[in-house]
Amino acid sequence: MSSVYTESLNRLIEQFGKLPGIGPKTAERLSFYILKVRPDEAMALAGAIGDVKNKIRRCEICCNLAEESICQICSDPRRDKSLICVVEQPKDLINLEKTGTCKWVYHILGGHIAPLEGIEPSDLTIEQLIERVREGNVKEVIMATNPNMAGDGTSLYISSLLRTSGVKITRLARGLPTGSTIEYASGKMLTDAIIGRQELE
Amino acid sequence: MSSVYTESLNRLIEQFGKLPGIGPKTAERLSFYILKVRPDEAMALAGAIGDVKNKIRRCEICCNLAEESICQICSDPRRDKSLICVVEQPKDLINLEKTGTCKWVYHILGGHIAPLEGIEPSDLTIEQLIERVREGNVKEVIMATNPNMAGDGTSLYISSLLRTSGVKITRLARGLPTGSTIEYASGKMLTDAIIGRQELE
Repeated sequence: MSSVYTESLNRLIEQFGKLPGIGPKTAERLSFYILKVRPDEAMALAGAIGDVKNKIRRCEICCNLAEESICQICSDPRRDKSLICVVEQPKDLINLEKTGTCKWVYHILGGHIAPLEGIEPSDLTIEQLIERVREGNVKEVIMATNPNMAGDGTSLYISSLLRTSGVKITRLARGLPTGSTIEYASGKMLTDAIIGRQELE
Repeated sequence: MSSVYTESLNRLIEQFGKLPGIGPKTAERLSFYILKVRPDEAMALAGAIGDVKNKIRRCEICCNLAEESICQICSDPRRDKSLICVVEQPKDLINLEKTGTCKWVYHILGGHIAPLEGIEPSDLTIEQLIERVREGNVKEVIMATNPNMAGDGTSLYISSLLRTSGVKITRLARGLPTGSTIEYASGKMLTDAIIGRQELE
């Protein structure tokens, strides 16, 4: 009986319902909220959606999200351009940046290699990464793909391509997550922690 | 470190975060979804928001949501205009309509009387309701405000104003909710059910 709503309200409910994790009830609640708020508040959301679609593009160097041709990180003179940290997606970059310990630049792959899902190496920005390394001035490539099968596979593939370049290739350390307990650590975690054990100073 | 996002992405996250029940994490997830979808899909949402704010107004008769001057229900010739069901808000109307048993028309109050929250009778559409009844042709006013203190208070106030009009005033039945158990019914529910007990046919 959704025909009881007006046409434009129905359409807004439908559109909200397309968002991930937004069910019909929430879509209805959000739509009624939009109906209720001041027009300028509602239009601020509509405008922000349009701006994201119109203004955001890929950084020409690292493929990060950018509003200029070069992203904020690549255009930051304090960043060490000789260290390239390779991540799968912009969200990974953001999480790494939140630590406040990164002085390097990035390369965003746009995902991981997954032949079963039809994602081939050519669908990622691997070629651009190879090109960046080939141009010289790169000392180290730090692989920060996800610590799972797909991420590790992608890392291995990329490092095999970079091996001839002579550049140092590292990956983020594996081990026990801080705050966890050895009692409940998985065998894989413990094996990683044992193999990668670090000297106490 | 949200400055890692681009400006327009930050703004979209902020705008999504203003929606009720949408926390920062969800706002981020929704924004990245918008970033990813086809432009026309994103603009359909932005457009739907604008349409709701620009097109929807109040029905001149019953104050329901409408895109014309008269809402769908009031302009439906099959509806019995001599029965007016009084509800607090459009959502209540929709829930009543979902039962498929209502052939009446409505009057939307726009809330309930709540002096402590600063909502006086004059903030509601009570005067318009009185006017509708005064114009004649109304046989019955069915009070369907919420079965709680605020709703009951509003109902009583309205019925006191309508008493002189001679129109029949009823309210939705109180009793045990279908599907519940007597074991767990509250005293108030049982009292309502006892007082309003109905003859079996």
